[in-house]
Amino acid sequence: MQFGVFGTGMVGQALASKLVSLGDRVMIGARNRGNEKAVTWTKAMGSLASQGSFADAARFGEMVLNATSGTVSLEVLNSAGAENLNGKILIDVSNPLDFSAGMPPTLTICNTESLGEQIQSAFPHIRVVKALNTMNAEVMVNPSLVPGAHNVFICGNDAQAKTQVAALLERFGWPSASILDLGDISSARGTEMYVPLWLRLWGVVGTGHFNIRVVSA
Amino acid sequence: MQFGVFGTGMVGQALASKLVSLGDRVMIGARNRGNEKAVTWTKAMGSLASQGSFADAARFGEMVLNATSGTVSLEVLNSAGAENLNGKILIDVSNPLDFSAGMPPTLTICNTESLGEQIQSAFPHIRVVKALNTMNAEVMVNPSLVPGAHNVFICGNDAQAKTQVAALLERFGWPSASILDLGDISSARGTEMYVPLWLRLWGVVGTGHFNIRVVSA
Repeated sequence: MQFGVFGTGMVGQALASKLVSLGDRVMIGARNRGNEKAVTWTKAMGSLASQGSFADAARFGEMVLNATSGTVSLEVLNSAGAENLNGKILIDVSNPLDFSAGMPPTLTICNTESLGEQIQSAFPHIRVVKALNTMNAEVMVNPSLVPGAHNVFICGNDAQAKTQVAALLERFGWPSASILDLGDISSARGTEMYVPLWLRLWGVVGTGHFNIRVVSA
Repeated sequence: MQFGVFGTGMVGQALASKLVSLGDRVMIGARNRGNEKAVTWTKAMGSLASQGSFADAARFGEMVLNATSGTVSLEVLNSAGAENLNGKILIDVSNPLDFSAGMPPTLTICNTESLGEQIQSAFPHIRVVKALNTMNAEVMVNPSLVPGAHNVFICGNDAQAKTQVAALLERFGWPSASILDLGDISSARGTEMYVPLWLRLWGVVGTGHFNIRVVSA
């Protein structure tokens, strides 16, 4: 399968590298073709990897992952072009974190809305699935870094799209039982608003290799 | 020990009843003396239980628990009177949930502030510890309803106060290792903003008898 990955940062590279390691072809997208980090990554990853603009990556991908900073994600998607994304699944991994006032960051959107919803609303023909935004990039693609069972959440309006994303998460190493479907895209409010707690927990736990497990009677 | 509990709803009654069952004397506080729910509860609980106004309960308690709706908590504390609370530990269990637009509720305060911080700021001589606001009332006072290990978070500026609250949580049945100190009262932003995810999880899990466990490498 062919994937487009928006974002050349830690999260984008972790996702793109995992996909290549699974044998998929991946184009990593940046604001401009020839982005230095994208070129370096492509050279390191070999023949399955390529780089281009956001629009290039959108055209290339049969499924697309948004790993850009949440504060620029809508602008990135506009740059990628609805015509290159419509009908496709977009896995939105981003969080609308504002670091401009230092640590801890605040959210630029929350409570009555979420970035996942804003993306779905701005691009009604993209099949948005919010996922993986509640953990460290290394844990996203290697859940066994955290011992025992722990959860990943998916949110979206399109049930078939969520099934396909769950299948991809299983390829990443997530046991089927650990993938919790929280409902429609408005449930992204829950997973995005969890991030401030996640940041506090990171400070307490002392490693990014942690996650939460939902335990019930 | 003598406790004051603000709030005669499900959370207030669960906390007050647990304290009585542990042999403590508890006054449950409401807007007015003789509140019907408070009187009924008092009769059911026997000689260790009493009821009164918020100010009565504040005076009575050596430690006080706020289990009122977050949208009225500041008003309740004003009614209780700083002079009756200063120097005491207040365990703030409340969440600033606004149900006026239906389900799911939104938060009336979040992101750059929290109710825990607003209370601490309005009453600088109360030793505010945010705790127990991330779960169902029955789980708060009977953590073994949820199998295995799972966590309760405490946030506050006063280390000694947090130690005393942790000791109370242990009396409630929380293992010491399950009590996570997230830091100062600003970390209440994290636990309050987790509530929207908790509400979604409740819908998925299908029982209020659930919680999260932080799992780390």
